[in-house]
Amino acid sequence: MSPEHAPHILTITCPDTIGIVAEVAGFLRDEKCFIEESSHFGDADTGQFFMRTQFCYPEGGFSADSFSEAFAPIAANFSMQWSLHDTTAKPRVLIMVSKHDHCLNDLLYRYRTGTLDIEITAVVSNHEDLRELTEWHGIEFMHVPVAGDKPAAEAKLKAIFAGTRSDLIVLARYMQVLSDQICTELTGKIINIHHSFLPGFKGARPYHQAYERGVKLIGATAHYVTADLDEGPIIEQVVERVNHTHSADDLTAVGRDAEAITLARAVKYHVEHRVFLDGNRTVVFRQ
Amino acid sequence: MSPEHAPHILTITCPDTIGIVAEVAGFLRDEKCFIEESSHFGDADTGQFFMRTQFCYPEGGFSADSFSEAFAPIAANFSMQWSLHDTTAKPRVLIMVSKHDHCLNDLLYRYRTGTLDIEITAVVSNHEDLRELTEWHGIEFMHVPVAGDKPAAEAKLKAIFAGTRSDLIVLARYMQVLSDQICTELTGKIINIHHSFLPGFKGARPYHQAYERGVKLIGATAHYVTADLDEGPIIEQVVERVNHTHSADDLTAVGRDAEAITLARAVKYHVEHRVFLDGNRTVVFRQ
Amino acid sequence: MSPEHAPHILTITCPDTIGIVAEVAGFLRDEKCFIEESSHFGDADTGQFFMRTQFCYPEGGFSADSFSEAFAPIAANFSMQWSLHDTTAKPRVLIMVSKHDHCLNDLLYRYRTGTLDIEITAVVSNHEDLRELTEWHGIEFMHVPVAGDKPAAEAKLKAIFAGTRSDLIVLARYMQVLSDQICTELTGKIINIHHSFLPGFKGARPYHQAYERGVKLIGATAHYVTADLDEGPIIEQVVERVNHTHSADDLTAVGRDAEAITLARAVKYHVEHRVFLDGNRTVVFRQ
Amino acid sequence: MSPEHAPHILTITCPDTIGIVAEVAGFLRDEKCFIEESSHFGDADTGQFFMRTQFCYPEGGFSADSFSEAFAPIAANFSMQWSLHDTTAKPRVLIMVSKHDHCLNDLLYRYRTGTLDIEITAVVSNHEDLRELTEWHGIEFMHVPVAGDKPAAEAKLKAIFAGTRSDLIVLARYMQVLSDQICTELTGKIINIHHSFLPGFKGARPYHQAYERGVKLIGATAHYVTADLDEGPIIEQVVERVNHTHSADDLTAVGRDAEAITLARAVKYHVEHRVFLDGNRTVVFRQ
Repeated sequence: MSPEHAPHILTITCPDTIGIVAEVAGFLRDEKCFIEESSHFGDADTGQFFMRTQFCYPEGGFSADSFSEAFAPIAANFSMQWSLHDTTAKPRVLIMVSKHDHCLNDLLYRYRTGTLDIEITAVVSNHEDLRELTEWHGIEFMHVPVAGDKPAAEAKLKAIFAGTRSDLIVLARYMQVLSDQICTELTGKIINIHHSFLPGFKGARPYHQAYERGVKLIGATAHYVTADLDEGPIIEQVVERVNHTHSADDLTAVGRDAEAITLARAVKYHVEHRVFLDGNRTVVFRQ
Repeated sequence: MSPEHAPHILTITCPDTIGIVAEVAGFLRDEKCFIEESSHFGDADTGQFFMRTQFCYPEGGFSADSFSEAFAPIAANFSMQWSLHDTTAKPRVLIMVSKHDHCLNDLLYRYRTGTLDIEITAVVSNHEDLRELTEWHGIEFMHVPVAGDKPAAEAKLKAIFAGTRSDLIVLARYMQVLSDQICTELTGKIINIHHSFLPGFKGARPYHQAYERGVKLIGATAHYVTADLDEGPIIEQVVERVNHTHSADDLTAVGRDAEAITLARAVKYHVEHRVFLDGNRTVVFRQ
Repeated sequence: MSPEHAPHILTITCPDTIGIVAEVAGFLRDEKCFIEESSHFGDADTGQFFMRTQFCYPEGGFSADSFSEAFAPIAANFSMQWSLHDTTAKPRVLIMVSKHDHCLNDLLYRYRTGTLDIEITAVVSNHEDLRELTEWHGIEFMHVPVAGDKPAAEAKLKAIFAGTRSDLIVLARYMQVLSDQICTELTGKIINIHHSFLPGFKGARPYHQAYERGVKLIGATAHYVTADLDEGPIIEQVVERVNHTHSADDLTAVGRDAEAITLARAVKYHVEHRVFLDGNRTVVFRQ
Repeated sequence: MSPEHAPHILTITCPDTIGIVAEVAGFLRDEKCFIEESSHFGDADTGQFFMRTQFCYPEGGFSADSFSEAFAPIAANFSMQWSLHDTTAKPRVLIMVSKHDHCLNDLLYRYRTGTLDIEITAVVSNHEDLRELTEWHGIEFMHVPVAGDKPAAEAKLKAIFAGTRSDLIVLARYMQVLSDQICTELTGKIINIHHSFLPGFKGARPYHQAYERGVKLIGATAHYVTADLDEGPIIEQVVERVNHTHSADDLTAVGRDAEAITLARAVKYHVEHRVFLDGNRTVVFRQ
């Protein structure tokens, strides 16, 4: 499919009022755009309206510039924050890991087979362990040690993010806490996988906490990273059933599949522009 | 909430083309209707478009007649099949049972507590067993024996359906096969619960079939009834995990919860006008 | 089945060591008992051993007294806490409620249909709302108001528990906190349903907490009641998927099915003598 | 852990009768074996008894030969089919694939990380596509084309199975039907993943069948291979929820995760000696 015929995705956030859908849909019709999928939601609590529309442009070349220029007055009228995304331009994702490889392996597999339609710009780690796995997939591995000088490591990370023109950072079991500053700078652009069913078992060693508490289900939570550790907006959660025969180590093993699946889904929703921030919650337009 | 301010639901089926959403949304805006929830889907295979929009009418009285008159030209233009539903008018549901009471009990509970916002016009059965349960809920119980004279029984059923001005028949473990004629007459208006994960284990005694086959999950399927037994369009399916320690009777017991939940969901989706027939499939706009 | 041929269940807790299963199984064989189902588990952490064996006694009359006398030396040798349960003697269950009826309705249904093989000794409530539902099932309803004089209410509750010879109290959405004293006296004999996925959202209004936090799954937890509120040993947990369109009220409605199913399972496991206390955890020998 | 102290697993199948558990447990106690995990089940339908006991031998060297010699009279007495498995001896698994790599990738990952404690003897394929993935894991890849001469290909397969001293063949989306002869010869030693929820959608292109039928859940089934295609004893099944927006291709993509997880579980249960054939069903002693 040539880029000018490829589907585009329009995402909108604005104060809720009468007539938004009519205006947007009317505009798309006038532009001869065929809507393939469209979702919208008005949050009665926050008064915010969210919309995601995927459309294609069957005849003639599509020009993002002219589309945007024509759409600007509508956007201004409704005080919209909006973006137009070309689905042929792959989102650029920077992955960060430490030593655990189950989430990385899963993301690399989905990347390699095209299930996850992204460009992985690099894998950054504070350890060397996952270099070989990364490089076999033809992806650059960067070792950024943290020990001793965290500010220096973080400065390097920011340089890498900028230098690789990445759109998103995925913490695929990266075991270091990021500074408040970088969390704030990159709001909505860092996804973390926490290995518990948040808000249960925040903090360290959640599977050991779960074992001590004797829960019958364990889980994983993918969320945006904020300065408030383990409190960022939740994107996806998955649970697995366990029982009394599972030791803390068993729980850790059982949880790995849940973590990998949860993170993969959250990344997929994000790069397909299905996730919207709505205060400390998210709106996720799942397929 | 007074009726004239209550939410209404507009449902539309028509051939897919550019501009439908724009036209409908534009119309609603011009009528000062505030959209509360809206979903649409174009089936690329069948070329059909489906839309469900729930809106409220904040100022002045809403008149279904004037709304319909104004909407008629748009509907004609796009060859729409459409309906307008007042959410304060409770769908009228006729329930049919034999001897098993788990689905009936569940429906009556949801009815009694308002979870399922319907009017139950009567419970019809070919046995007397469930009279007391029905009548305690203040609902009329009608015994329509089938043995010997099926056509007479079916004629009586049709008279009851018409006489009670019912919109929907729910077969809540009714163990008689309906005639092709009534299935055809009431297409899309009869929901059945089949106690297996269709298309596995069609026909009689599905839990015994499941036991013989040694499956590790059993299920239930709610579907519209067609002349083709157990082949009607599926609305909802649920499964439960089982293992080698479960006898056929155990499977039957385990399956009851799945059946009740599956049927309750299907009825809820139907009476909220969330289900559309799309050939032999359904489009279900779940919340 | 006459009582003397009915299955019996032997439950054992003792320090783990070599030879327990051999001794118990050898004893049962010598007594001509046929094992129908047997489970055991040694907790490497606590050093405790747990065993549940269901057996029948095919020939001649079974005498609990002579069985117990013969088993006593083995029990003493291994320092066992043990019980012998006749499966024809229905466990006597006292249910406590406030105004919500979904858990009570579910328990009554399972009781009425024999799915839950118990005797319900009475339903006690601090409100009058659920009298009619209870009495229709032929069960005594007792109104024990709490307002003003909690100690008096609790004294009355204890008198009812004793007077009805109940074995178990089920808090089926009873909205009052019991005193430390009664929690301690009846350790392992009071089951509560908490409407969240513990340890997430302890305390009041968990669905509202869940809404604020924006979780993607909500849950219910059945646990034994201890003096430490919402911290008692967990018996069973169930979750349901939700999304951004669900208000706090919607979450409450969605959660009801999960609560009812979770509580019914926990009660079933308990009355089938499948649950063992293991410190602050439980061992549950599920089918 | 030195081999002589490592856990061993004893598996037994025999006609059910009184005293089997007592005899086996008594024997283990006399041999000073400490039982770590034990499960047994008597199938009232088939009259067969199944037992799996994992035990360790804390003091002195364990000798499989002397254990077996001592156990032989008990085994003979109860007409047991039995095996003793050293858990330090890794099961030798031969994997067969065609072009789809999701199941292979998942098995290789679990193998590489030790989650699946097996030796992969080789990967055999009728295509060359998956050579690179296999060889990167340090595993031999063998191309055995089928086109034209199926008997020759199968003879070669049997030679590879014997030559590599494999214990199990895993068909990880191998798209050729094996001959009746090899299925019979290797009864209980070949595991296949079928990409549907059997017995629904047997045969070719199950996701397309599922799409046509409009199901709301799709699934995967791992089963032993028998001469009767898609009818072999089921080991494990998993389902995923889908809806009307999923095309047949979408279903295929959604199903991949279910297939990989289902197959990995079945292989794990098998190599941990948790699966027993019970006529056309299986007994699976899950953790």
